[in-house]
Amino acid sequence: MDNRKIGIFDSGLGGLTVMKELMELMPKESVVYFGDTGRIPYGTKSEDTVVKYTRSDINFLNTFPLKTIVAACGTASSIALPRLKDQYDIPMLGVTAAASREAARVTRNGRVGVIGTAATIRSGAYRALLEQENPAIQTVSVACPMFVPLVEYGYAETEVAKMIAADYLKSIIDSGADTLILGCTHYPLLHKVIQSVVGDTVVLVNPGACVAREIREKLDKNNMLTDKKDKDQYQFYVSDDPAEFVRLGSTFLEHPINGLISRVDIEKYM
Amino acid sequence: MDNRKIGIFDSGLGGLTVMKELMELMPKESVVYFGDTGRIPYGTKSEDTVVKYTRSDINFLNTFPLKTIVAACGTASSIALPRLKDQYDIPMLGVTAAASREAARVTRNGRVGVIGTAATIRSGAYRALLEQENPAIQTVSVACPMFVPLVEYGYAETEVAKMIAADYLKSIIDSGADTLILGCTHYPLLHKVIQSVVGDTVVLVNPGACVAREIREKLDKNNMLTDKKDKDQYQFYVSDDPAEFVRLGSTFLEHPINGLISRVDIEKYM
Repeated sequence: MDNRKIGIFDSGLGGLTVMKELMELMPKESVVYFGDTGRIPYGTKSEDTVVKYTRSDINFLNTFPLKTIVAACGTASSIALPRLKDQYDIPMLGVTAAASREAARVTRNGRVGVIGTAATIRSGAYRALLEQENPAIQTVSVACPMFVPLVEYGYAETEVAKMIAADYLKSIIDSGADTLILGCTHYPLLHKVIQSVVGDTVVLVNPGACVAREIREKLDKNNMLTDKKDKDQYQFYVSDDPAEFVRLGSTFLEHPINGLISRVDIEKYM
Repeated sequence: MDNRKIGIFDSGLGGLTVMKELMELMPKESVVYFGDTGRIPYGTKSEDTVVKYTRSDINFLNTFPLKTIVAACGTASSIALPRLKDQYDIPMLGVTAAASREAARVTRNGRVGVIGTAATIRSGAYRALLEQENPAIQTVSVACPMFVPLVEYGYAETEVAKMIAADYLKSIIDSGADTLILGCTHYPLLHKVIQSVVGDTVVLVNPGACVAREIREKLDKNNMLTDKKDKDQYQFYVSDDPAEFVRLGSTFLEHPINGLISRVDIEKYM
């Protein structure tokens, strides 16, 4: 048994879609969430900056006694985690690696589509990981920078979202991919629109669900699942005012954010 | 004569639309531009965070010998400048104050529309400034959070932009406003779409042009215009990788960014 908490971080509140998966799969585990709302987004910024910010996110989470850290942010997982994970003793797992393993397992025709932020797609991380799983896999990837604003500003289920999705996903459809990785925390919230554009035969891979399953398996195998439920089971930390996070967060978590929430001066952890 | 440079800052590259106005109106003046590309955007963040970031932007610009500082960012001008300007010796002027004076002068029916980021609109800064100019003015304001992504991700002149603009601007049209302040640096790049939605009779006020005119008048009146053109007339500083800024910046500046550009560790100026 290991009653330490699981740490999870994201550039903002999108990572709550990943936390939701952890909560559903491991309802007894305690979770500390850090959302870098003061510096969001990561997906439009350079590799250097993403690495710098991710390092401070991990440094902050490392002030807690944790058994593992999950990088919920697609951009941080793709760009920063491979460079940073060997610099820390604590085991860390990102959504990108977990989703690549799942997609490689799921595809039947060996053609996998990947959508994500500009930084994620530019990094080529998904392509490299998929090739590592199976060198025969062909990857088609497209940056979809409008998807995050569409979700955040209330356009997720509109005609506008459909038009933009049709525009972005054209090359994915043309490639004949039978599997599509939703490589950014916000994209599962566009699930319906994306599925309707690519068609029912394409399997959508939700990286949050993949990473939650892998964490569960790993903890179970090493006998590290908790055996008791904490009173303060969920703690939230953000680098901007918590008010907005509390307001919007419940949409992402599909659960009220009634745990403890505090503001962190993240610049102190750089 | 005063041959010191003019300082200008913004949350990113949008402020280049304001710099363009300065360059056109005062082609001899030298300008130092700081774009906080590592922490962009400001318009979705809390007042505290906007003030904290703006303070470091001003602190950085203050390391140069400048004759004045222009806040090009609508959010920083609305929220942070009123709180910070008395803490510094150097004269500072923001787009919000200049645009309010212009709109109050221009309106014939006393109804003024204001569009801007969520933070700008929430602050009520435009409403307060317009009332100060003329207590009879009625202000109708709407946050248009999708406008920045539409511009930044290449959707400025599309059907999608028109649909979103029609959605956002409905209450402005219904109010019968004859003047509309484009209260965010990116909005002048949506000029055509906005004008077509609100109709030709509505006067669009570009805050960048207003602040450039006020700066010119002030410098002229105090005999502070420069009498010589520097060799390194334009200098650019950013808090993220300069490459992206150079690539996109020319669209905003409508001029190649061939001056000096460097990266700044802005956290050191907090």
